[in-house]
Amino acid sequence: MDKKLRIGVIGAGRIGKLHSNNLVNRVPNAELVAISDVYEPAAKELAEKLNVPNYYADYKKIIDDKSIDAVFICSSTDTHSPISIEAAMAGKHIFCEKPIDHDLDKIKKVLEVVKEAGVKYQVGFNRRFDRNFSHVRDVVKSGGIGDVQIVKVTSRDPEAPPLSYVKVSGGIFVDMTIHDFDMVRYLSGSEVTQVSAVGACLVNPEIAEAGDVDTCIITLKFANGALGVIDNSRQAVYGYDQRIEVFGSKGCITADNEVANNTVHYTAEGVYKEKPLWFFLERYNEAFIQEECDFVESCLCDKPTKVGAFDGLQPVLIAIAAKKSCELGGVPVNVGE
Amino acid sequence: MDKKLRIGVIGAGRIGKLHSNNLVNRVPNAELVAISDVYEPAAKELAEKLNVPNYYADYKKIIDDKSIDAVFICSSTDTHSPISIEAAMAGKHIFCEKPIDHDLDKIKKVLEVVKEAGVKYQVGFNRRFDRNFSHVRDVVKSGGIGDVQIVKVTSRDPEAPPLSYVKVSGGIFVDMTIHDFDMVRYLSGSEVTQVSAVGACLVNPEIAEAGDVDTCIITLKFANGALGVIDNSRQAVYGYDQRIEVFGSKGCITADNEVANNTVHYTAEGVYKEKPLWFFLERYNEAFIQEECDFVESCLCDKPTKVGAFDGLQPVLIAIAAKKSCELGGVPVNVGE
Amino acid sequence: MDKKLRIGVIGAGRIGKLHSNNLVNRVPNAELVAISDVYEPAAKELAEKLNVPNYYADYKKIIDDKSIDAVFICSSTDTHSPISIEAAMAGKHIFCEKPIDHDLDKIKKVLEVVKEAGVKYQVGFNRRFDRNFSHVRDVVKSGGIGDVQIVKVTSRDPEAPPLSYVKVSGGIFVDMTIHDFDMVRYLSGSEVTQVSAVGACLVNPEIAEAGDVDTCIITLKFANGALGVIDNSRQAVYGYDQRIEVFGSKGCITADNEVANNTVHYTAEGVYKEKPLWFFLERYNEAFIQEECDFVESCLCDKPTKVGAFDGLQPVLIAIAAKKSCELGGVPVNVGE
Amino acid sequence: MDKKLRIGVIGAGRIGKLHSNNLVNRVPNAELVAISDVYEPAAKELAEKLNVPNYYADYKKIIDDKSIDAVFICSSTDTHSPISIEAAMAGKHIFCEKPIDHDLDKIKKVLEVVKEAGVKYQVGFNRRFDRNFSHVRDVVKSGGIGDVQIVKVTSRDPEAPPLSYVKVSGGIFVDMTIHDFDMVRYLSGSEVTQVSAVGACLVNPEIAEAGDVDTCIITLKFANGALGVIDNSRQAVYGYDQRIEVFGSKGCITADNEVANNTVHYTAEGVYKEKPLWFFLERYNEAFIQEECDFVESCLCDKPTKVGAFDGLQPVLIAIAAKKSCELGGVPVNVGE
Repeated sequence: MDKKLRIGVIGAGRIGKLHSNNLVNRVPNAELVAISDVYEPAAKELAEKLNVPNYYADYKKIIDDKSIDAVFICSSTDTHSPISIEAAMAGKHIFCEKPIDHDLDKIKKVLEVVKEAGVKYQVGFNRRFDRNFSHVRDVVKSGGIGDVQIVKVTSRDPEAPPLSYVKVSGGIFVDMTIHDFDMVRYLSGSEVTQVSAVGACLVNPEIAEAGDVDTCIITLKFANGALGVIDNSRQAVYGYDQRIEVFGSKGCITADNEVANNTVHYTAEGVYKEKPLWFFLERYNEAFIQEECDFVESCLCDKPTKVGAFDGLQPVLIAIAAKKSCELGGVPVNVGE
Repeated sequence: MDKKLRIGVIGAGRIGKLHSNNLVNRVPNAELVAISDVYEPAAKELAEKLNVPNYYADYKKIIDDKSIDAVFICSSTDTHSPISIEAAMAGKHIFCEKPIDHDLDKIKKVLEVVKEAGVKYQVGFNRRFDRNFSHVRDVVKSGGIGDVQIVKVTSRDPEAPPLSYVKVSGGIFVDMTIHDFDMVRYLSGSEVTQVSAVGACLVNPEIAEAGDVDTCIITLKFANGALGVIDNSRQAVYGYDQRIEVFGSKGCITADNEVANNTVHYTAEGVYKEKPLWFFLERYNEAFIQEECDFVESCLCDKPTKVGAFDGLQPVLIAIAAKKSCELGGVPVNVGE
Repeated sequence: MDKKLRIGVIGAGRIGKLHSNNLVNRVPNAELVAISDVYEPAAKELAEKLNVPNYYADYKKIIDDKSIDAVFICSSTDTHSPISIEAAMAGKHIFCEKPIDHDLDKIKKVLEVVKEAGVKYQVGFNRRFDRNFSHVRDVVKSGGIGDVQIVKVTSRDPEAPPLSYVKVSGGIFVDMTIHDFDMVRYLSGSEVTQVSAVGACLVNPEIAEAGDVDTCIITLKFANGALGVIDNSRQAVYGYDQRIEVFGSKGCITADNEVANNTVHYTAEGVYKEKPLWFFLERYNEAFIQEECDFVESCLCDKPTKVGAFDGLQPVLIAIAAKKSCELGGVPVNVGE
Repeated sequence: MDKKLRIGVIGAGRIGKLHSNNLVNRVPNAELVAISDVYEPAAKELAEKLNVPNYYADYKKIIDDKSIDAVFICSSTDTHSPISIEAAMAGKHIFCEKPIDHDLDKIKKVLEVVKEAGVKYQVGFNRRFDRNFSHVRDVVKSGGIGDVQIVKVTSRDPEAPPLSYVKVSGGIFVDMTIHDFDMVRYLSGSEVTQVSAVGACLVNPEIAEAGDVDTCIITLKFANGALGVIDNSRQAVYGYDQRIEVFGSKGCITADNEVANNTVHYTAEGVYKEKPLWFFLERYNEAFIQEECDFVESCLCDKPTKVGAFDGLQPVLIAIAAKKSCELGGVPVNVGE
């Protein structure tokens, strides 16, 4: 393909850097032409490092640039929905980091505007593009395990985020489990109708003081009758623990963690394997690239994105229900109530 | 050790045959001297096959035989508690298949009588003696994963029992999950304080008609603050799926299924490993022998049994709470309420 | 089956104890009736421990006992062939520990006498009865990997034997590799026609002084055109390393070591699995029982043994060729030259 | 780093395309400025696809371009040594695909000229840069298995090359095993002093007619006393089989094949894993990128390359000895004889 997608990245923080770097170095049909950040030196530094021609403090310069086809919204969460709306109205395709918003009405407004504008919209649920998880989904979809009956997700971070972040994150369900809520929808091919969640603060008591839990188990019911369970911890000392399993009437399929290498070392003391890759930047590196390639292809070839705006809404609905259930001590809560 | 424990087996059904066979062939210090069964030909056939000198229709002949040191109660569930009481009052050590009873008062009565009589009492929670699970427990107990935070049990039978059995079994929580309730107590070293259970009938609609579920997920809270989760299915078409995982502040330990052999077969079509062993007779064969050896040793050496009468009571309490929670659609229920 | 095979065990050393113990406790249709050892107290002690009614210093008392159906020859290697001949002439079935002899003429004489006498003869190549290796053989035999092209055996002991033993063992090829020579014949279903062996003394220089090597690699050619390779070490500090692989026109099949349990332990320091089982008593425990059961069944049901006298001869021929090749620095030597 | 290495690629065949593509898309400090191929349209097509500014039929235009810092020699084997010499004399750093030449004198001439010219020289032994193999080397080098005693390489291609290629390839040892000869040097950290090789034609009889073998086992002796073994097949129907193992006085370390994903699929029929990645383009994709990055860094930062010209010579010497040994039926041959 000769045509390239001209892209502006909004937000030059950790995730903005990741996307910018990949768009320049790893996504063949992407052309990163501008980077903005409210803190202009960050935009400048990143643009210079990657030889990107333009950088701004004001993202509106990207929105107003008619030569730009698409934006990556990597700014702070509270700006996701307003920038999504502005970009859609300017006719730009949109890749938006998760979550679209914490406010359901704002998300719904985004869905509406995006639909009217007819632009592509993709939410940054990168895990769907992991080679293991996408293979599991393919096998499930093709009937390889028959009817889905149980979906299991193990999802544990290697270390808790700073307390300052915990306080503004919206809580573990909105901030962390939201990825798992997306994953169970993806794996089951069905909507979550009810959740019950129990939580505890076992990692760091200050998280409890901040009104959150750091360890939780969430049980789910799906529209197709299947059941699901997610277990989360903010701190797995051995690394990022990301495993899934789908069980059905004709079998079961599991996906394991990724490791730096597959060697096994035998000594008089024991037998050692590598630990799981440390965190999401390592584990999902290729998945990020894949989601970017997919988005670019969707825009250039006018195909639906694999994670649309509706997929951005549902996990937030589930997260809100889970949070409520956890606060009620585990009482089941219907999603969308 | 020269002394042998003289044993009578009460009940010559499937599990009675298993114990009798092991006691004769695999437990060095056991001497099986009598077998009883309400259907005398079954007792006779088994006794003759194993060269056991005595067989009876009436188990009371075993109770009354002063030369017998211990009994294995393998008769129908409703007889477990009355025979336990009679045997204890006759001064016999008791190995009782699970559950002691479905009726809490009857179980408590057994505990009381056993305590007064000062006899050994062991409940047939054989999985504690599985080489993988007992190693997990050892590692957890020795602090190998720090403080326990999450306990996970996957427990799926290869095929559903006959409907006739389902109807009298007391339901999946009492009949099947009870083993898992014992396992989470064993692994965590803590008591379950609250459960919530969701269930569905996905394997066989007739099970629903019989008032039961065949697929369920149970979330647990422990006295020490940890959380737990069990998932059950009555039918895993690939075999008996029995895995556990304990996660804590310093790590995680998992135990996998057992297989008939560890070969890996590579062909142009794919790479194949063995399926899990088919069912409990295959998977827990060595665990049964180990629990029998342990019981015999406890009796001969006057040591506490590893699974006492109290351990027979607790899982029933949890099962009752789980059943109630499931009937209420997943509302959390305190154990012992 | 009601009939039992009445057995006498000749030799109450390590392997005699192992067989005696299994025959009493694990082999249903075996009846161990006598044990002999040139050092009578050893025979007495073992007989009393196992409640075996007779013990002798002189094995001829076993040979002369007309009520005895079969003997297990577990005495020193130099006595294997003469006792085999005497036992065969007395009409007894024979289980003989490997090797039958170091002297080819003596082995051939045994084959001759056994054939004339029409008794069963089984050589103690226990590894054929290992659940993993026998499954590999089954898959190969049934065409699961097509035509056999490469056979690989890794075989490493956890620790070198005492020097005193090395000096009289006949050397690593006769003493240790002989099991692997049997294994490659078993796996390939073909005879070894040529070997070349290179060796080194890397574990303990005193082994070199004793005229032996402790590390070696043996390349083999088979009558069916396949190639093979064995690697040996007298000392794998992580335990008994026993793995095999058969590669062919339609695939490949591998068998791995056995472990005490299949748990995986994740910590901040690393991920640990169990080491291979320490040595042959642990690793091949069930294989020993299986070979004994098979021998007893062969005798009672008049079926050919799975490892006959000819199978005792061939590995010795290969070992002699390997030793010669190694002494010549790796020059290929035809088997049976 | 701001400075980029200006590179010309000589040869636009399969491997030239691979390197060109990586240099443009995956190697940050590389700037591909010219491509040549004796068949000019191939150079043109590749250059246009990758936006490379210059293409030529005559590689001398690259040699003569003073703005070019380094060349990748990806042309036919017979041109490797003369172009190496010309490029070195022109002061260019050189990345040369293996083998440098089949003629030892020509290789030695290259070594000499390169040394005089003081340019960097790297041979394309990409497997050293595989994440698994390089980790094995790191563990071995750091003493993790003590003194090296046995090195094992399994190396099997998924399908035999065309007969036309076999006829000019120089034979399996020079064409295919050469990678494994490099690997054993790399893993052991020692030179091979003696080899013996046995071969057979089991895959395709036409390969025998062409004077080559398609299946072989090579035994090696190292200067440090260790032993080694390589087994090769031209056709593993399940995919590219590339595994290594290093065994030593303090342990053992193994590296396994790479797979497309780590899922495990359980059904009533069996348990399935992914097959090994199909061939070198898939398996060693990241290793190729890594070797290119390393070369570029060596040139830009004036550091020694990780696989120098001497490393290009040694495997050829071993291959020649192996070929001779195989022709002699397995007689050991000294390397460099």
